[in-house]
Amino acid sequence: MGESAVNCTIAVDTMGGDKGPTEFIRGLFYAIEELKLECNFVLVGNKRLIERLLTVGKLDAYQDRIKVIHSTQVIGMNEKPIQAIKSKKDSSMVQAIAQLKNNEADAVVSCGNTGALMACGTLRLRQIPGVDRPALGIIVPSKQGPFVLTDVGANPESTAEHLVHNAVLGSNYAKAALNLTHPRVALLTIGTEEGKGTALINQTHTQLQKINGVINYVGPIEGFQLFDGEVDVVVCDGFVGNIVLKSSEALFGFISTTLREALVRNVKRKIGAVLSKSAFKDMKTRLGPDQHAGAPLLGLKGNILKAHGSSNFVAIANALRIAQEVVTHDMIDSIGSEINQCNALNIHCEEENASN
Amino acid sequence: MGESAVNCTIAVDTMGGDKGPTEFIRGLFYAIEELKLECNFVLVGNKRLIERLLTVGKLDAYQDRIKVIHSTQVIGMNEKPIQAIKSKKDSSMVQAIAQLKNNEADAVVSCGNTGALMACGTLRLRQIPGVDRPALGIIVPSKQGPFVLTDVGANPESTAEHLVHNAVLGSNYAKAALNLTHPRVALLTIGTEEGKGTALINQTHTQLQKINGVINYVGPIEGFQLFDGEVDVVVCDGFVGNIVLKSSEALFGFISTTLREALVRNVKRKIGAVLSKSAFKDMKTRLGPDQHAGAPLLGLKGNILKAHGSSNFVAIANALRIAQEVVTHDMIDSIGSEINQCNALNIHCEEENASN
Repeated sequence: MGESAVNCTIAVDTMGGDKGPTEFIRGLFYAIEELKLECNFVLVGNKRLIERLLTVGKLDAYQDRIKVIHSTQVIGMNEKPIQAIKSKKDSSMVQAIAQLKNNEADAVVSCGNTGALMACGTLRLRQIPGVDRPALGIIVPSKQGPFVLTDVGANPESTAEHLVHNAVLGSNYAKAALNLTHPRVALLTIGTEEGKGTALINQTHTQLQKINGVINYVGPIEGFQLFDGEVDVVVCDGFVGNIVLKSSEALFGFISTTLREALVRNVKRKIGAVLSKSAFKDMKTRLGPDQHAGAPLLGLKGNILKAHGSSNFVAIANALRIAQEVVTHDMIDSIGSEINQCNALNIHCEEENASN
Repeated sequence: MGESAVNCTIAVDTMGGDKGPTEFIRGLFYAIEELKLECNFVLVGNKRLIERLLTVGKLDAYQDRIKVIHSTQVIGMNEKPIQAIKSKKDSSMVQAIAQLKNNEADAVVSCGNTGALMACGTLRLRQIPGVDRPALGIIVPSKQGPFVLTDVGANPESTAEHLVHNAVLGSNYAKAALNLTHPRVALLTIGTEEGKGTALINQTHTQLQKINGVINYVGPIEGFQLFDGEVDVVVCDGFVGNIVLKSSEALFGFISTTLREALVRNVKRKIGAVLSKSAFKDMKTRLGPDQHAGAPLLGLKGNILKAHGSSNFVAIANALRIAQEVVTHDMIDSIGSEINQCNALNIHCEEENASN
């Protein structure tokens, strides 16, 4: 493989995802031609098929930056994670992660089975020292800039320590993917004025205040503030985050469908809809998931990014772009350093509590 | 007060809410004239002001169905709940609840301070025997019919027993407010295929299966299914429910704003927007909160309904309509009976577990 302008290699699980390798190759073309990605790529999957798609997809010109690794198996979207990764050692997903493990790649991007990706990533790479549980982070649009929501499903039963770690992980992801120097980190909770919240949230809030300096903690926010864009990172456990993320996606779809139905109910509305069509496209581009489609499994000793199973080529290209961002920002080193600082401070404050 | 066609009296905290008593009187007019409510009303607040508004609002014709009770104090939206209800015994909220407590009314509707309403309701009325914690239920639109989401904030730290009770409470609310005979009850969770969920959710799921017969439990659902309309009641704890509800409202606002901005970006779009304006209005009517604006505090020995602080007259009228529904459906008796059945079954299954 030749030298790329950016010292970064991304391994791609080309066989995962609902749309198959064709969409991945289109995404790769878009990433190189439109998003101007300058890293190298290792494509893992059916070699003969991938090479044919590369030729059809006019990617021959970039062959010095693209390597293909043959694998014979594919993990299905509905397979049981642990069983799948154990029984399919020559799957594109397991082999892509092996590339990362063996330092042949700096990041992995997959649209495959989330559970299998998390399990294989955690088992093969292990956590950054000091991090107890990995967290899935995702970028969400808001009235102002996009923000990071974490955890969106990796760890549904969190302790206060896990949530504090999520804050550090999310802050570092925001630095890398959103190019921020001091991301504003908030804790998701419910109506404070009523003495609400939970013991877990109150304990986490206290601990986050103590590490304010390692990260830029700005306090709790409520659900109604989620899309205001006043903060850059929103911290929650994987149960709440997954439900918020998925119900928001569902609501976006529901509103779009309802509006579409209302717009074809008579001729006047139909004409209006045709004239204003580009506005709906703008909205979809701005709020849809394609721009920020790579969700990293934060806290591991390696960059693993999950893209939606139904990702189109734009979403795949953006996942590759985010992978390049986290690699070039040395996100993992930065996380390791901040987790150490934060654990030191937290242990200190727990000892204080114990002696009181 | 004269005899109404429906044997039901609703006490109204006319002074709570952001828009003041004027909006309440408009809501009352709309409830009687448009929604054809046939119950009696007890309006609590500044008597002279209310009587003037009744005259201005052309409600003199209904004076045999409307009684006004004078109160001198108002609980503000930001006051601390317990302190407020203790120090303001002559507030419109406390006095409205006193009407209910003294059997002068069958339900209370308030747009005031949620925390104060929950605290005062719980302290004055107490729970239905067998119910440990009250839950806030709310009606949410979906692709098919509307559904009940409960708890949306009364009890953020739930046990499995609380969640089972929420299921019974929500099922009875769906029967009364949505006029269903066998509401399909679901438990909100996250991706099951990955062995996810939490211990609490799994335990609740097992217990709900045991009471399937008292209620119609159809199993767990995920966030992405929330607006599909395949179920009539979605059960969650008050922390998750409050965040889902408030973030959904926020997302609805965010999408509307984004679309509005996109629609005025050029002349062609502006013309299109004017022609299709009624479609947006349809969508807002269908998805906005005005149709189902009364959220009952379920599980108390009395019907207390919370309407949004910023409710307009349509929302207020619909809250009054829902209050009449829950009274005429004898919701509280029905809850008491089903909670007894369900507690008997659950105690049984816990003993089984203990002996295993």
